Amino acid sequence: MSVVEREAGQSTGQTENIAAVMREIGIAAKAALGALATSSAEARNNALNAAATAIRAGTSKILDANQLDLAYAQEKGIRASMIDRLVLDEGRIEAIAKGLEDIAALPESVGQVIDEWTRPNGLTIQRVRVPLGVIGIIYESRPNVTADAGGLCLKSGNAAILRGGSESFHSSSAIADYLHHGLRVAGLPEAAVQLIPTRDRDAVGELLRMVEFVDVIVPRGGKSLIERVQTDSRVPVFAHLEGLCHVYLDHDADPNMARDIAVNAKMRRTSVCGAAETLLVDKTAAEHLLPQVAKALIDAGCELRGDEGAVALVPSMTPATAADWTTEYLDAILSVRLVDGVEGAIQHIEEYGSHHTETIVTSNQATAETFLAKVDSAILLHNASTQYADGGEFGMGAEIGISTGRLHARGPVGAEQLTSFKYVVRGSGQIRP
Amino acid sequence: MSVVEREAGQSTGQTENIAAVMREIGIAAKAALGALATSSAEARNNALNAAATAIRAGTSKILDANQLDLAYAQEKGIRASMIDRLVLDEGRIEAIAKGLEDIAALPESVGQVIDEWTRPNGLTIQRVRVPLGVIGIIYESRPNVTADAGGLCLKSGNAAILRGGSESFHSSSAIADYLHHGLRVAGLPEAAVQLIPTRDRDAVGELLRMVEFVDVIVPRGGKSLIERVQTDSRVPVFAHLEGLCHVYLDHDADPNMARDIAVNAKMRRTSVCGAAETLLVDKTAAEHLLPQVAKALIDAGCELRGDEGAVALVPSMTPATAADWTTEYLDAILSVRLVDGVEGAIQHIEEYGSHHTETIVTSNQATAETFLAKVDSAILLHNASTQYADGGEFGMGAEIGISTGRLHARGPVGAEQLTSFKYVVRGSGQIRP
Repeated sequence: MSVVEREAGQSTGQTENIAAVMREIGIAAKAALGALATSSAEARNNALNAAATAIRAGTSKILDANQLDLAYAQEKGIRASMIDRLVLDEGRIEAIAKGLEDIAALPESVGQVIDEWTRPNGLTIQRVRVPLGVIGIIYESRPNVTADAGGLCLKSGNAAILRGGSESFHSSSAIADYLHHGLRVAGLPEAAVQLIPTRDRDAVGELLRMVEFVDVIVPRGGKSLIERVQTDSRVPVFAHLEGLCHVYLDHDADPNMARDIAVNAKMRRTSVCGAAETLLVDKTAAEHLLPQVAKALIDAGCELRGDEGAVALVPSMTPATAADWTTEYLDAILSVRLVDGVEGAIQHIEEYGSHHTETIVTSNQATAETFLAKVDSAILLHNASTQYADGGEFGMGAEIGISTGRLHARGPVGAEQLTSFKYVVRGSGQIRP
Repeated sequence: MSVVEREAGQSTGQTENIAAVMREIGIAAKAALGALATSSAEARNNALNAAATAIRAGTSKILDANQLDLAYAQEKGIRASMIDRLVLDEGRIEAIAKGLEDIAALPESVGQVIDEWTRPNGLTIQRVRVPLGVIGIIYESRPNVTADAGGLCLKSGNAAILRGGSESFHSSSAIADYLHHGLRVAGLPEAAVQLIPTRDRDAVGELLRMVEFVDVIVPRGGKSLIERVQTDSRVPVFAHLEGLCHVYLDHDADPNMARDIAVNAKMRRTSVCGAAETLLVDKTAAEHLLPQVAKALIDAGCELRGDEGAVALVPSMTPATAADWTTEYLDAILSVRLVDGVEGAIQHIEEYGSHHTETIVTSNQATAETFLAKVDSAILLHNASTQYADGGEFGMGAEIGISTGRLHARGPVGAEQLTSFKYVVRGSGQIRP
């Protein structure tokens, strides 16, 4: 019986023994990691598929658990957008099951030989992919993340310690139970995926200090969650900071392409991290480009907040304040600024951006290459929408988030980014002179 | 004038304004990183070569500075082994200069396209190597590390913030001056390599909290330094923990190869992190293998500390205590234990090892593959000495250390490991449906 099973049924809110519980979880995760590291891809995929089947069969139990969570959330007076993320129905549960099957179908990374060479002394050296280790995932009250994140970690042979938002406790526990079922069916340790068995916030603090047991923390959620994790964590963090993404329309942009990319980057979905938040327009082309781009955005329902130059060209814009350059609206609002060519755009992005995703629209190849080389963001695009910032669109399959950090993972964090490597050196008796 | 230049001449020991000084260093490093990210490989190599030339020409000035450090160290009563690392002579200064030239001659990683693919919608995606960022290096009183570490960071386009041991302050400052000269000659910002301009220990604490400016900390030194850094740092750390390396002699080991590898792994150099500290011998072959291996080790001047079974076979061994399995001797001492075949060896290493480097000696390919797959260390060897755990021996050129962590860098950390990557996506007007 795993720690999760033993504790999940107990009353929540216990504080007395959080540190001990978390330590036990850490020990169990490390032990599971040992078994996973030498498990076959087939066994891990079997676990994912068996969990998917069990989740489908257990739909009504998951819905019951979700009802408990919804009652709790409504009692707490949670706002509607959060309720929407929490609520499950048959379609959403089917999507969770299908997501696990999709992860199982992804190509295998663990064991892959990344690089191989032979030294003059005859030693052959291989860099071989291995699981990254024990991954702690802290997320909001979105039960689907329990399966998505747990499944993706498992795919790459990692042990996952999951901590979902307290309003999703029962739903996440029910899903975790089916993940455990899948692991049992596949002959893998249940502790490969553990859900922290308490709502107590102290558990998060403990998790962030467990350097002995946890290799990396992945926070998934809003800015305040991520900032708390980054401030408090002693364990390295794959930071997904906000997506303050920019669209730069260059002097040499095709006007129709500029319009279509600006509208798509902002309005296709405004709530995703790859949605554009600021439109930068080359001063020398603003008169020519901006009015029709602005009209298309306004027609699509977007509010525009412009600097002086932009407002002069499109008087219906609201004047922007300094805060607009650093605000991730995640809404149908776009700040607009005129800049001095590509160098001005680069400077603005350097000063206000979040190193996530930016695009340049231009027909001038040299200008594009300057932008692609100089801007220091995880994803840079030329003549394409920022909304392509997505692991699926990159062909990586599922992603656990988009990292704005520079260490280990950058951009979409998929199954491959959740691996480390080791060196395997084969000799015939070599000793070092 | 860089921060280093402005401050280095001032009296050391100032505490009043450490945070402000460190903040200024962080800002300067970030600014330098921007310039470095788009600098040419030629410019960075020019800087390294010009620094090497300047160091050679400045030998007498560096020796004068070293005299100040030696006087201070002797006053403080530093022990002889540390004085030996601190003292410079013409040969050592030549080696420092040559080291920089060797780094300049390494192949270029920055800008390299690691991976490239095209999506069905026509978007081409490249993963391109970029500098890792601002790297903080904390080391002991070894002036040569100032050039080695600063040079290696610069090679990959990173900005370095160096903090050497306080006894090497003047020597390191003199070397840093010549690195700045090289940067000036190459038209690169001097702040690409900054030496913290104070001996005050509080500066280290500040550096470890500068998440806003520093991307990774690399501690180079003994266990206590690394433990302090790992405990206190809010910035991610490339941990080089101790090298508790193991040699496992399997039932199917060739006796002569077993002897030669065991002696080389322990005795070639006992002070390096790749030196073996524990010899594990398959129980079923111990009678056959151990006596002659032990004799060769003892003849080479090694003290052996064995478990009961080992002592029974080689009565001249000292009985080992529990502490022997977790001690990195860095000396001519080796602990010896009999184990139950390869699985017993794997268990011992899992329990007591430091995830650094281990080797198996066996003629049985299947046994070897079990060991190579199951042991969770940065470097695993088959029929070769653990002393090959070295960036140079791997063909990487210089290394900044050997990481025992799993995140980003693992094993020898060379110029390539000091890079990150970004995604460059080229389109023709794609918008996401």
